[in-house]
Amino acid sequence: MFINIAWFSVWMRILVDMDGVIADFEKGFLDSYRKSYPDKPFVPLEQRTSFHVKEQYPDELQPLVEGIYLAKGFYLGLPPIEGSLKALSELAARGDEVYICTSPLLRNAFCIQEKYEWIIKHLGKDWTKRMIVLKDKTIVHGDLLIDDRPDVIGVQQPTWKHILYSQPYNAQVNSKRRMTWQNWKSVIDS
Amino acid sequence: MFINIAWFSVWMRILVDMDGVIADFEKGFLDSYRKSYPDKPFVPLEQRTSFHVKEQYPDELQPLVEGIYLAKGFYLGLPPIEGSLKALSELAARGDEVYICTSPLLRNAFCIQEKYEWIIKHLGKDWTKRMIVLKDKTIVHGDLLIDDRPDVIGVQQPTWKHILYSQPYNAQVNSKRRMTWQNWKSVIDS
Repeated sequence: MFINIAWFSVWMRILVDMDGVIADFEKGFLDSYRKSYPDKPFVPLEQRTSFHVKEQYPDELQPLVEGIYLAKGFYLGLPPIEGSLKALSELAARGDEVYICTSPLLRNAFCIQEKYEWIIKHLGKDWTKRMIVLKDKTIVHGDLLIDDRPDVIGVQQPTWKHILYSQPYNAQVNSKRRMTWQNWKSVIDS
Repeated sequence: MFINIAWFSVWMRILVDMDGVIADFEKGFLDSYRKSYPDKPFVPLEQRTSFHVKEQYPDELQPLVEGIYLAKGFYLGLPPIEGSLKALSELAARGDEVYICTSPLLRNAFCIQEKYEWIIKHLGKDWTKRMIVLKDKTIVHGDLLIDDRPDVIGVQQPTWKHILYSQPYNAQVNSKRRMTWQNWKSVIDS
């Protein structure tokens, strides 16, 4: 029992969301959208204000927007968010128990498989053992959840504390804990 | 607080493993193996004694055995275990919170995607929201885990109680709680 207490004080179990935290959904979407529809209007990254990109586009463009992120290859092709891969390796190296905790877009039939392929491509095969794929993150035991979604709710009160990963689309949200991979050390350890 | 206590006493969160509990890995394997290699020796279902089927085959046949369950289409083609689909629907209908909690075979590149397709095929699309895919089931909050694996261990003491789903290959295991979909009501409610 004493050992357990000492052990918990040293490291944390950190659940890390995937899209918008380590995989750059917004950049991947916008690059692909502009390439596919160079003559259509678009919302620049820094002007994104809604959590779901589709909501910020007019009705007539929404089918095109959806077509981008429902396409085969979209999830696998997402660029990593700057600093994320290095930070994950550092967290693991210093002894924190890190899991990639991601909620799949079930309407995209390739999403889940490509999320695993993305992890292999950018972090290596061993990290696939750290994947947790589910809709409701509140039922996972953890100390921290790093997520760009302002409201991570579910069937129960979570054991983890939510750290909001800062993105333009959540800038207006009032949150006590925020971070990016540029300042994670001070936020996670506080 | 009072409401919470009353609420927990009424229903349970039940995590249900997939292979060997709702999807018949053993029958799917044996049917496919015998069809592919009709002249090779095989282990009948009722004589299976090891948790992993491969271990019960001689060294020279193990590559053939692996080839069966690493093949595209294997997981999607598994037959449901008798009574499982009806029981899941009954559990959900009576108000229990049911999740399919499955650990993927990462060496099979089609496994995870096909597990989702299997759920859609046999239980319907809504049940994919109930999927939890991860390697370590101990980090999921739950009341019960129904699993055919005798030793479900991981990084922490689980909150769930393990009910062993009876199969020929775990018959020799000494377990306090055992069930099949033929007697689940008396076991789960006790």
